[in-house]
Amino acid sequence: MNEMVTQKILQASLLLREHDLPVWIVQFARETYENPQPVQQLAVGTTVTWPAAFIVTDDGRSYAIVGTGDVSNTRQVGAYANVIGYVQDIRPELRKVLSELQPARVGVSYSLDDDSADNITHGMYRILRQSLEGTPFAERLVSADEVLIDLRARKLDVEIERIKAAITVTEEIFTEIEHMLRPGVSEREVAQRVHDLMHKRSVTSAWDAGYDPVVNFGPESPFGHTAPSGHITLEPGMLAHVDLGIKRSGYCSDLQRMWYILAEGEDAAPQSVQLPFDTVLSSISAGFGALRVGRPGWEVDSVARKVLVQAGYPEPEFSLGHQLGQTTHDGGALLGPRWARYGRRPELLLQPGNVFTLEYGVTSPLGQIGLEEDVLLTADGPTYLSTPQTALPCLRP
Amino acid sequence: MNEMVTQKILQASLLLREHDLPVWIVQFARETYENPQPVQQLAVGTTVTWPAAFIVTDDGRSYAIVGTGDVSNTRQVGAYANVIGYVQDIRPELRKVLSELQPARVGVSYSLDDDSADNITHGMYRILRQSLEGTPFAERLVSADEVLIDLRARKLDVEIERIKAAITVTEEIFTEIEHMLRPGVSEREVAQRVHDLMHKRSVTSAWDAGYDPVVNFGPESPFGHTAPSGHITLEPGMLAHVDLGIKRSGYCSDLQRMWYILAEGEDAAPQSVQLPFDTVLSSISAGFGALRVGRPGWEVDSVARKVLVQAGYPEPEFSLGHQLGQTTHDGGALLGPRWARYGRRPELLLQPGNVFTLEYGVTSPLGQIGLEEDVLLTADGPTYLSTPQTALPCLRP
Repeated sequence: MNEMVTQKILQASLLLREHDLPVWIVQFARETYENPQPVQQLAVGTTVTWPAAFIVTDDGRSYAIVGTGDVSNTRQVGAYANVIGYVQDIRPELRKVLSELQPARVGVSYSLDDDSADNITHGMYRILRQSLEGTPFAERLVSADEVLIDLRARKLDVEIERIKAAITVTEEIFTEIEHMLRPGVSEREVAQRVHDLMHKRSVTSAWDAGYDPVVNFGPESPFGHTAPSGHITLEPGMLAHVDLGIKRSGYCSDLQRMWYILAEGEDAAPQSVQLPFDTVLSSISAGFGALRVGRPGWEVDSVARKVLVQAGYPEPEFSLGHQLGQTTHDGGALLGPRWARYGRRPELLLQPGNVFTLEYGVTSPLGQIGLEEDVLLTADGPTYLSTPQTALPCLRP
Repeated sequence: MNEMVTQKILQASLLLREHDLPVWIVQFARETYENPQPVQQLAVGTTVTWPAAFIVTDDGRSYAIVGTGDVSNTRQVGAYANVIGYVQDIRPELRKVLSELQPARVGVSYSLDDDSADNITHGMYRILRQSLEGTPFAERLVSADEVLIDLRARKLDVEIERIKAAITVTEEIFTEIEHMLRPGVSEREVAQRVHDLMHKRSVTSAWDAGYDPVVNFGPESPFGHTAPSGHITLEPGMLAHVDLGIKRSGYCSDLQRMWYILAEGEDAAPQSVQLPFDTVLSSISAGFGALRVGRPGWEVDSVARKVLVQAGYPEPEFSLGHQLGQTTHDGGALLGPRWARYGRRPELLLQPGNVFTLEYGVTSPLGQIGLEEDVLLTADGPTYLSTPQTALPCLRP
């Protein structure tokens, strides 16, 4: 029995009522191990081989129409009350369930604005429409993205606890790798040590293990989603920057931490790194202070962004923060600028139960500067889930 | 540099010419670590965060339009000659490339018939169409599934070598676990041992690790995609059945093996298991003998299926075999019956370079019987890539 998925399905029924959507086809998919979708972990709880339809209604009914080979797993999840097996063709059972429910609108899991709410493949969407031809429901398919975005974004207590647990492990790993930050160590060696520590703690990377962690030593290290280099080594007078996320019990952390390696004769970091570091810190604090339920995400980004731009740094090419949950880029309201790339997500209003990252960075002559914290928003305001980095540790080589 | 993806992109250009499709948008996607697609490993070679378009033409040109944060990884793959970075909006660059190419048709990676060729999400398909509005290309989008199916299914030599290597490791694991097949061992213990052996050899499960391997001891073990039980233990007079696939260097194996544990006083398996075992063996051999380039897959299935049905067993609810490659259910021509569930795939003609599984099974009073081999089809006929199981080993308890 998957308690998490069962709770999310109950939450889904409430959200359907709130958004006035009578029926939602949560997933219509096949071979979902090879072609997994973000909704699967959240609200399905099993992979399927043959075409399958998972359906939830606004009055708390739930149906899983699956190939006979997928029946026993689907029953084990325990979230869908009616598990219906078929052998040759899913269509008759699907039509039967819908004609029983007679919904005025049928939500489908796709979205133009939100990648984590964009699940169904175009081929399966066409098959769904064709399967319903000759019924009134073919013309009643609509995007269920408002429901799905809220379902992901409004974390239940059990989800927040899991995110916290992931953050705790991440902070332990940061503490452990600090000892390695000595002259001569390569970016790749640090990344490998992080992977060993993850394996020891039975957790996995939160994103592509090739770029998780990102490790940047000094000014020559390329920034972004880049594999840590075996050739770039840490030297005195360099900044060390690590961006690390782990996944534990299905939920992620996402944090960035920084260190400075003192050069000969130095007792503190030079102003050329201390000043930008303090600016990044202020920018993130300003973003934290601006978080408020009901506010659109772009306003929060703009507060933090202004701190950087007014200090003379170029406009950042990314956003202040994204939501965090089963995936590191968890969809829903984004703390980002209103750029076409981000769709409608910066316009969405912040909700209680949202968990955000707050991350900004700038370049300095001695290396990349970037910090990232994880924050929960409640009706009473924001709380840090991570222990924020507030100073730049200066390590003696 | 990803040599495999680079070779597949060259093959893609040839296939575009063969199928008379001038331009193919191989992938149009975002956040592909969270929402991965089968085409990614085969013909893209990297994950991307922001919306990205990977394009190949029938005259060997290739373009990757990616967010600036994804440029360096995309360059590292080395398969796409033109890597174009953007910051705010992908649309202008996408329109520019297409208006340069002026294609009469633009292939998109979706398919109604083949799950592994069904990649683009419905949301991204709509965004693609909207992005091309006002250009002639919006009306020229077509499914590229014929190209993509062939690209997956016609294995290059380097791919066949990798599949063979995965099979070798799998056969080694079967040899090792045979020693464990003693009374009292549970299905779950065998599965855990298999996972340890995979980890030791730095290979992963070919499908969902919860059901890979499938382990079935005796008649009470539920069949299908089911997690091995901690309660069902092996006892004398039981059949042991293991379905195992591993992935190594991106390519999969998929094999089933069987053993019988002798009951007290027995020197050989009883007829109630030997007869059905021999029937399954004949069925698979008949399927192997029927494999021929140019034949539709359903004909091969029907030859093997007939052996079972004529021996008095019920019509199997699944197919004789699927293709094998980067995924265990690798798409393309299927050796299966012409059922709605399978779409057009049983009608597709077998090609040189296709790699198939051959798997059939029946139930017996002492447990599930199932065998599975991996086979390469060439212009000269079929060859076993696995070492076929030809007898039922009887183990003394």
